[in-house]
Amino acid sequence: MIAEILATGDEIRSGALVDSNSAHIARALEEAGVFVQRHVCVGDDMEMLAQILTDMGARADIAVVTGGLGPTLDDLTAEAVARAAGVELALDQTALDAIEAFFEKRGRTMTASNRKQAFLPAGSERLDNPYGTAPGFRLKIGRCTFFFMPGVPFEMTRMLDQQVLPRIERLLGGNRLMCRVQTISTFGLTESATGERVAELAQRFPDLQLGLRAKFPEIQVKLYARGRDGDHLQRILTDATDWVTAQLGDKVFALDESSMEAVVGRLLTEQDATVAAAESCTGGLISHLLTNVAGSSRYFLFSGVTYANRAKIDLLGVLPETLERFGAVSEETAREMAMGARRAGGATFGIATSGIAGPDGGTADKPVGTVCIGLATPEGAAGRRFYFPFGERSRNKTIFAMTALELLRRELIGRGAQPFER
Amino acid sequence: MIAEILATGDEIRSGALVDSNSAHIARALEEAGVFVQRHVCVGDDMEMLAQILTDMGARADIAVVTGGLGPTLDDLTAEAVARAAGVELALDQTALDAIEAFFEKRGRTMTASNRKQAFLPAGSERLDNPYGTAPGFRLKIGRCTFFFMPGVPFEMTRMLDQQVLPRIERLLGGNRLMCRVQTISTFGLTESATGERVAELAQRFPDLQLGLRAKFPEIQVKLYARGRDGDHLQRILTDATDWVTAQLGDKVFALDESSMEAVVGRLLTEQDATVAAAESCTGGLISHLLTNVAGSSRYFLFSGVTYANRAKIDLLGVLPETLERFGAVSEETAREMAMGARRAGGATFGIATSGIAGPDGGTADKPVGTVCIGLATPEGAAGRRFYFPFGERSRNKTIFAMTALELLRRELIGRGAQPFER
Repeated sequence: MIAEILATGDEIRSGALVDSNSAHIARALEEAGVFVQRHVCVGDDMEMLAQILTDMGARADIAVVTGGLGPTLDDLTAEAVARAAGVELALDQTALDAIEAFFEKRGRTMTASNRKQAFLPAGSERLDNPYGTAPGFRLKIGRCTFFFMPGVPFEMTRMLDQQVLPRIERLLGGNRLMCRVQTISTFGLTESATGERVAELAQRFPDLQLGLRAKFPEIQVKLYARGRDGDHLQRILTDATDWVTAQLGDKVFALDESSMEAVVGRLLTEQDATVAAAESCTGGLISHLLTNVAGSSRYFLFSGVTYANRAKIDLLGVLPETLERFGAVSEETAREMAMGARRAGGATFGIATSGIAGPDGGTADKPVGTVCIGLATPEGAAGRRFYFPFGERSRNKTIFAMTALELLRRELIGRGAQPFER
Repeated sequence: MIAEILATGDEIRSGALVDSNSAHIARALEEAGVFVQRHVCVGDDMEMLAQILTDMGARADIAVVTGGLGPTLDDLTAEAVARAAGVELALDQTALDAIEAFFEKRGRTMTASNRKQAFLPAGSERLDNPYGTAPGFRLKIGRCTFFFMPGVPFEMTRMLDQQVLPRIERLLGGNRLMCRVQTISTFGLTESATGERVAELAQRFPDLQLGLRAKFPEIQVKLYARGRDGDHLQRILTDATDWVTAQLGDKVFALDESSMEAVVGRLLTEQDATVAAAESCTGGLISHLLTNVAGSSRYFLFSGVTYANRAKIDLLGVLPETLERFGAVSEETAREMAMGARRAGGATFGIATSGIAGPDGGTADKPVGTVCIGLATPEGAAGRRFYFPFGERSRNKTIFAMTALELLRRELIGRGAQPFER
């Protein structure tokens, strides 16, 4: 079964609105075992709409269309469908009753333009919409079964689940292909290095499809398994996940799409440990990430964002001599900052960053992208220096913060300090 | 000039990723005066790609394509282009040199798979990509000029501005319908309240098109002027901007798409003032936002992210009696936190937040969405309480942080403290 998705509307066509409906529909169709081959988006243009519906009717088995069912003049979908299918629009009395009831229930007056919404292409099956005034409908054009829904996401997502997907499952019958997905989240290898390490996957697991997704700064390895036997798919995925994890080692930080900060939070909770941070160049981002996780108040105690040297001395107890001798961006300062955060917060662990996020402030010795990260544990403290070539402030802040969290993660899983490999 | 946009990649096709690139490109093309007629998205499938490129080449004048230029096996765009255009792939020595330099500069080893990225369709013009390893290229297929770019948004958006749009402007030549856009950034009104206040715009300025864009938590009012006389367009836009600003008053914080944190930073710099923060529920987000602005070290001195009460007492000098009597989430505690941040940082201003971002921790008296914000100035300090109905942790953190920055902005422009209106 091959499906296509059509999103209509000038707002999406012109880029005023990002089309999130199509991704939502694609995900739902793929999970139901339908292969989505193409998405198309066009504006409110009768000729164009009728032409595209005709084209899709010749190509696909299933098509899901959103938008253009509203009451205004630029809502053209029903009429374009009638043209493409060569039928008339006809009043659907049940649809009209439902629209009238919708307004009555809300104490609002129905306008003449809403009456238009009750005219559906002759021969179509009405798809009820209890969430708005526009009913959807199902109709075959060419060889393809079309499902039409309004574009409002709140209405569309509910109609998809309640009206469209059950009908598609019936169409699929015994012909149903399932799709299972496994995401393996990694940090510390480039996309191409990751790709090379898992290059043999295609030979070892010929039934799987591999996808790499750069979700800066993490790289996700995605495994897709398609077939008819759910248990069999799960077994292949489990074997392949074990194999990929063996290739990538401790670069893998999650198998359930968790973020790095959520993984660190889970490890801290499991070990009944707490953390405090001292941030210079990351400017609060480490704390922001850690506190994005619900329940983080259990293990996150304190962060001092100390841009100024004065604050590093007064609040974190960094020695003026250290700053004098090694500079603010140095392993020694980062180490003392981490110790200061740990002490000030009364925490099990202290992490600290001092570096140059840019665009200014770089030197030959310490260019933009240089960061020193300190980690203080109950056993001692150390500072390490890294250089990242991204050359852009917000990316630098992100990779600096993620590296600090990764160092803490490695400490928590007992794997020492080397987060990067060639 | 008619344009089409093509997004490639299995992640987008299958719905694993929402395609925001196409909307970004559509907006940029429409602003440049090019009509975008259709967006298409397909997966990593050679036959399909070559077929669609051929179809687009017969239909459109301009096509912008993203994705499939990476180093891995499923990056097929260059080969599909070669097929559709009937040419070979050829090594582009300049591209190879750039890729090698990219790796050398970062002290990383270039892999064999990256070499593939330097093979471009014969006869194409290379589009340099200083932000990644994949060069783009321009090539005519059929009657249509295609621009190919990587799919990584960070690389794509920059290449679009620097490489693609200038070439499209040259293609347009005298045929160009200009589109001027004015963005008016506001904070403190809902989208519908904003719409009502500027509803008369269509009558007063019939040549302009109005768009409202909710960029949570700010609302942008966008004015579009289209025509051939640039000076005339600019005059209308200036008049309309004055009128809109008069309707929205000091809810308007920027006319140049600056972020709230950049506006606050500019005001602080102008007034030779500095700021320190104390964050509880915002968890470092205020500092993160302020330090996203390049040069913020001139005015941002310190933030204490004090989740624990102990840290509020020890580091900010909040009185234990205040916490005891009023609780951590109270106007009084927020006020003392702001005073403590100002004192600890040695800053002109102190801002502080204490609230309940959720999902847990709400009470009948102080439900999730409650925040107390303190502001300390050279003249004194005050705490204020707000409630937001968003009920979701990350949205709450964002609106809490923005409200704190807005209170500081209002102080800096001498407009007192009331940031919200019905």
